[in-house]
Amino acid sequence: MWRVSFPCTCRLLPRIIVRMELNFRSDNESPAAQAIMNALLESNIGAAWAYGDDFWSQRLDDAFSALFETDTLVIPVSTGTAANSIALATVTPPWGTVYCHRNAHIYIDESGAPEFFGNGLRLAPIDGADGKFSADDMNRLINASEGHGVHSYIPSAVSLTQSSESGTVYQPAEIESICDAASRHDMTTHMDGARFGNAVISLGCQPADTSWRAGIQLMSFGASKNGCLAAEALLIFGRPELREKAERLRKRSGHLLSKMRFVSAQLLAYIEGGLWLDLARHANHQASRFAEAIGNHPEATLEFSTQANEVFVKWTTEGFQRLESAGISFLYWPGRNDLARFVFSHATTAAETDRLCQVLAS
Amino acid sequence: MWRVSFPCTCRLLPRIIVRMELNFRSDNESPAAQAIMNALLESNIGAAWAYGDDFWSQRLDDAFSALFETDTLVIPVSTGTAANSIALATVTPPWGTVYCHRNAHIYIDESGAPEFFGNGLRLAPIDGADGKFSADDMNRLINASEGHGVHSYIPSAVSLTQSSESGTVYQPAEIESICDAASRHDMTTHMDGARFGNAVISLGCQPADTSWRAGIQLMSFGASKNGCLAAEALLIFGRPELREKAERLRKRSGHLLSKMRFVSAQLLAYIEGGLWLDLARHANHQASRFAEAIGNHPEATLEFSTQANEVFVKWTTEGFQRLESAGISFLYWPGRNDLARFVFSHATTAAETDRLCQVLAS
Amino acid sequence: MWRVSFPCTCRLLPRIIVRMELNFRSDNESPAAQAIMNALLESNIGAAWAYGDDFWSQRLDDAFSALFETDTLVIPVSTGTAANSIALATVTPPWGTVYCHRNAHIYIDESGAPEFFGNGLRLAPIDGADGKFSADDMNRLINASEGHGVHSYIPSAVSLTQSSESGTVYQPAEIESICDAASRHDMTTHMDGARFGNAVISLGCQPADTSWRAGIQLMSFGASKNGCLAAEALLIFGRPELREKAERLRKRSGHLLSKMRFVSAQLLAYIEGGLWLDLARHANHQASRFAEAIGNHPEATLEFSTQANEVFVKWTTEGFQRLESAGISFLYWPGRNDLARFVFSHATTAAETDRLCQVLAS
Amino acid sequence: MWRVSFPCTCRLLPRIIVRMELNFRSDNESPAAQAIMNALLESNIGAAWAYGDDFWSQRLDDAFSALFETDTLVIPVSTGTAANSIALATVTPPWGTVYCHRNAHIYIDESGAPEFFGNGLRLAPIDGADGKFSADDMNRLINASEGHGVHSYIPSAVSLTQSSESGTVYQPAEIESICDAASRHDMTTHMDGARFGNAVISLGCQPADTSWRAGIQLMSFGASKNGCLAAEALLIFGRPELREKAERLRKRSGHLLSKMRFVSAQLLAYIEGGLWLDLARHANHQASRFAEAIGNHPEATLEFSTQANEVFVKWTTEGFQRLESAGISFLYWPGRNDLARFVFSHATTAAETDRLCQVLAS
Repeated sequence: MWRVSFPCTCRLLPRIIVRMELNFRSDNESPAAQAIMNALLESNIGAAWAYGDDFWSQRLDDAFSALFETDTLVIPVSTGTAANSIALATVTPPWGTVYCHRNAHIYIDESGAPEFFGNGLRLAPIDGADGKFSADDMNRLINASEGHGVHSYIPSAVSLTQSSESGTVYQPAEIESICDAASRHDMTTHMDGARFGNAVISLGCQPADTSWRAGIQLMSFGASKNGCLAAEALLIFGRPELREKAERLRKRSGHLLSKMRFVSAQLLAYIEGGLWLDLARHANHQASRFAEAIGNHPEATLEFSTQANEVFVKWTTEGFQRLESAGISFLYWPGRNDLARFVFSHATTAAETDRLCQVLAS
Repeated sequence: MWRVSFPCTCRLLPRIIVRMELNFRSDNESPAAQAIMNALLESNIGAAWAYGDDFWSQRLDDAFSALFETDTLVIPVSTGTAANSIALATVTPPWGTVYCHRNAHIYIDESGAPEFFGNGLRLAPIDGADGKFSADDMNRLINASEGHGVHSYIPSAVSLTQSSESGTVYQPAEIESICDAASRHDMTTHMDGARFGNAVISLGCQPADTSWRAGIQLMSFGASKNGCLAAEALLIFGRPELREKAERLRKRSGHLLSKMRFVSAQLLAYIEGGLWLDLARHANHQASRFAEAIGNHPEATLEFSTQANEVFVKWTTEGFQRLESAGISFLYWPGRNDLARFVFSHATTAAETDRLCQVLAS
Repeated sequence: MWRVSFPCTCRLLPRIIVRMELNFRSDNESPAAQAIMNALLESNIGAAWAYGDDFWSQRLDDAFSALFETDTLVIPVSTGTAANSIALATVTPPWGTVYCHRNAHIYIDESGAPEFFGNGLRLAPIDGADGKFSADDMNRLINASEGHGVHSYIPSAVSLTQSSESGTVYQPAEIESICDAASRHDMTTHMDGARFGNAVISLGCQPADTSWRAGIQLMSFGASKNGCLAAEALLIFGRPELREKAERLRKRSGHLLSKMRFVSAQLLAYIEGGLWLDLARHANHQASRFAEAIGNHPEATLEFSTQANEVFVKWTTEGFQRLESAGISFLYWPGRNDLARFVFSHATTAAETDRLCQVLAS
Repeated sequence: MWRVSFPCTCRLLPRIIVRMELNFRSDNESPAAQAIMNALLESNIGAAWAYGDDFWSQRLDDAFSALFETDTLVIPVSTGTAANSIALATVTPPWGTVYCHRNAHIYIDESGAPEFFGNGLRLAPIDGADGKFSADDMNRLINASEGHGVHSYIPSAVSLTQSSESGTVYQPAEIESICDAASRHDMTTHMDGARFGNAVISLGCQPADTSWRAGIQLMSFGASKNGCLAAEALLIFGRPELREKAERLRKRSGHLLSKMRFVSAQLLAYIEGGLWLDLARHANHQASRFAEAIGNHPEATLEFSTQANEVFVKWTTEGFQRLESAGISFLYWPGRNDLARFVFSHATTAAETDRLCQVLAS
């Protein structure tokens, strides 16, 4: 009944081993949505000019400009790390600091890609509650690091993650406040939107409301986690002069795909007709059902408010082990065995969520 | 009749514009083979662990080890530039020189990706006839650049392209001779195998014969040009200690895809059952038919011997313009209008080649 | 009476403007000791082989090995930033973290030189009292940043400053404890010894006791602040295999001086006959006299214990302004006007200290 | 009689070993001029603000502007490699090419410092006769490397060496022609003036004539080889907007000396009163005397015209060995024992040149 796959190096066994695994580890582990696959198939007709001069890639700027209600430059790539790193290195000199949350993907999960692309730029981690930071949190750190001329890094950019690494969501006013503060320090603003769709659904707003209208200038618009195979878009709002450097960094880091149409076709299908929001709505809904079950549980509690598609649960080690014994997989918080993350994706079925809640309650 | 697509930014027009274009510009512009698409669809079932811990990625080492008849480490990525740059940066210190042909992709088409990944390593271009260089050509340049200790770059690696950028193919003995010379200078050997399949078909040998058995230690095994969407593999023969650095460089450059299964599934389908060789055989055959037509032409001549899937033609400007008027597209040699390249791919139909030969003869 | 110089761009004025300035801003602003100048003059005789193959440079390893009572490799350079950056980049991969105090010079005063030399290595600042951190402080941060494989930076090195940026001194046992902890994480240990002489005097120990015997593997041995013109030495204890990479980094960053004898001659004169300790003893003594005066003052207080040649004073804005009005210059703590630093050097005269204490008391 | 020093690692021997060595190896091996030493002594009075805010450093812009008869920004550093690398990295993006002579110091003697500072910029070596290249030589290479957009390096800067590595000197008209060509490609122009004084003497022109008036925008103004201990100046003509980036690169590479006055005082003394030209005139004269002796020799011949302070001699191996036996040291051309370089410096005495000519003739 459960859809499953897991690593196997034995070449003699059949390809897919069926095992009782219910995967709530990460939306990175979800399959692609069928509509995305169909778009790939449709784009696979005849020749197409290489390196982004194809019909699909050429449509990206218009399609995203329409979606975001403003002139938008689109740099398609195949990973979020590439989108984040190109964005930050485009606007930050090697002696510039990028402020971000201490749990930000760019700080703890990218092995220094921003530092590599940015030739030694520095990330400064901000401590902040619930996976988010406020303008005050940022200002405090900036002020405490006041430099002296050529000897010191200069504040250069801020990057916030929407929805956050803790499954919470920034309100537009919170973003605006951070972007205002950034502007007063001449800093560029970047949003890591790896789970941007989940945030838009959560807020019930327009994409523009929680991005450029709130002051965001660059965005890594994620699609892989929410239904694509490998497709992300670096979006640039109102800063056309940044295109050249961003494109150079993309090429030089090996991220200008020859058959770019296959990334662009995914992105077009993802945003056209609101598919991305449908997929995110589904994922958020499944998450909210589990969060409700946690709320009703006598022991387990929510570590953070569940505002998108990730649920962080505090519970006993024994409790978590009971879930594992039932074939349910999830990820423990680094260094903790009483705190775990459950991620719901576009592909999580209602039956799977039912089963999870059922084992939890048992 | 002709399958066509070309850039269009008008969002109101139908998606695919039919135009009289016969594309011989590059195999980079070919679609994916249907069998590869089918493999993608098949792999899109249920959850799969992220970042290469999936079932498909875990099978790569075994599958390539079988294909190459030796222990082979496989680092899948999505572009050839990434494979080349990771390979070279893994074995070359920032103060090391990589020797390559003056027309090598790494030297003229990657915008300095090897220098970027390798933190300022240096490429030294070797002049050599027919898109290839010999051990003597390389030794001459190395000897002329004899350095003095800490002041100078040291010879560190050699990279040769098989089949070459001129559509020619290195004989195994030629490779062996270069690798022997490299070994005497303590240099690592790398093959850019963007069109490796075309070379293997041309030589009628085993993959091992024109790679590690001839002394190659690292290979960028290309698949995108010959039927995949975006899939390349960095292969490491007999140097398992290089895996860690190569994997770090992959991650840090944003090339560790979360849903890696979609790259690995392409690669497995590509090599299983000899698909890659079937596709390359077809491409080479179409190229040889056009080369034969050139051989019989009163004016046009072959610039290089046609040994793989690329045909380089010397002709009059008027001649080439006649082809263009007939809707045939191809690429002129940089700075020249009397020399052009025609590339044949797995997807070039016999009818397309017929049409090209027909216009040529007219 | 007061020795003074200050910036002046008018070319018509006499060279040295006498002004009532008593400089306690930094030992960086002190002149060179006469004995060092004499050594320069003595070394300026005839030709000497370039790039460190001269007579003076060739003696460095022996001279420092004798001073430190162990085999010591010496890489002379002309700035502390160069010594620190070469040291850290030699032992840290681009994906490695260097732990240091939040106020460390490498973190706040070198504009990212370690990140530049180290191709994007990361510095992780440790909060710790009195300008120092403990093994526990470091372990807490390492544990809180526990990574996951290729996605995360790895702990790679620790750098501590002796004497510290707050004028305090690590006890040998404190260093040993940090180095033990580092060793358990396979980290290399580095000491920024910009004011090492002041620490040795303060501790009354042998140089070895507060360096390699306590577990330090690499040291930036400072001399410029304490009597040289521009001379620092990167010392490597018991790791001869590091020499090649360190020398490459020195050359590649432009720090291999052609007339290296003039750096090496300074270093030899500095350590021979204990000159460096005499100079440091004098500076420490002047500092202690001022610290005593602060201790007796009704309002002003010491922010940190004065253990070397720097005195950190907490006082009223009005108080500090009174000093300034008397021609006394010093540096305010960044962003504070109730906290200031007074530095005493080998060249601070007893009369200058008297005058400072006198104005303080008035 | 001959002033001599050579490497010795034995600590028991007296410091200076007198041996019959007449050093014509390099002007890098000459001592400092006494006037420079005197300036150092004079500058060593009292405190001076650090990091270039001292009285001497603040006078550099005015002093060099007067010397060059135009607004000149001065960035003092302590090595020519630093000056060259900062200059080139300031004006060249990582995807830019710097054209230079194949024998240029930046290409063969700096271990990749320009590539390091420039984050992987590329040097393209131009072959040209007599250690110089012409505008035509450069244009040919640029045209042959015509790129295609984001895939290729762009021509970004040209660097020529005055006097050249072969002891020859560019005429102002030759420089103008190169700079005109560079301008047509939007390239910045740089002069490596490690031996600029020798060129000015040779040409009998004003410094401006062979620099900015001929189109040079950045210059590494060398002083170490011609009488200083360690002092070089990066000069920027008419491009004040470059100062910030150049100063950042200097700091970040560890080249902002704390006691900068000691570099600046050397530079001021070097140019004031024409000292630098007197020293260069002497060196050139000694070289011309030896060149004349070669001209009169029955076997030995000049490889290049002697226009500055370097003499390149073609002779028999036996002939060169005879010189060596007489205690005369010089450097063989890499990989050759029938071609050698003799360098004359400000410190070469007439008696030393006499002795050299005498042994040659014997």
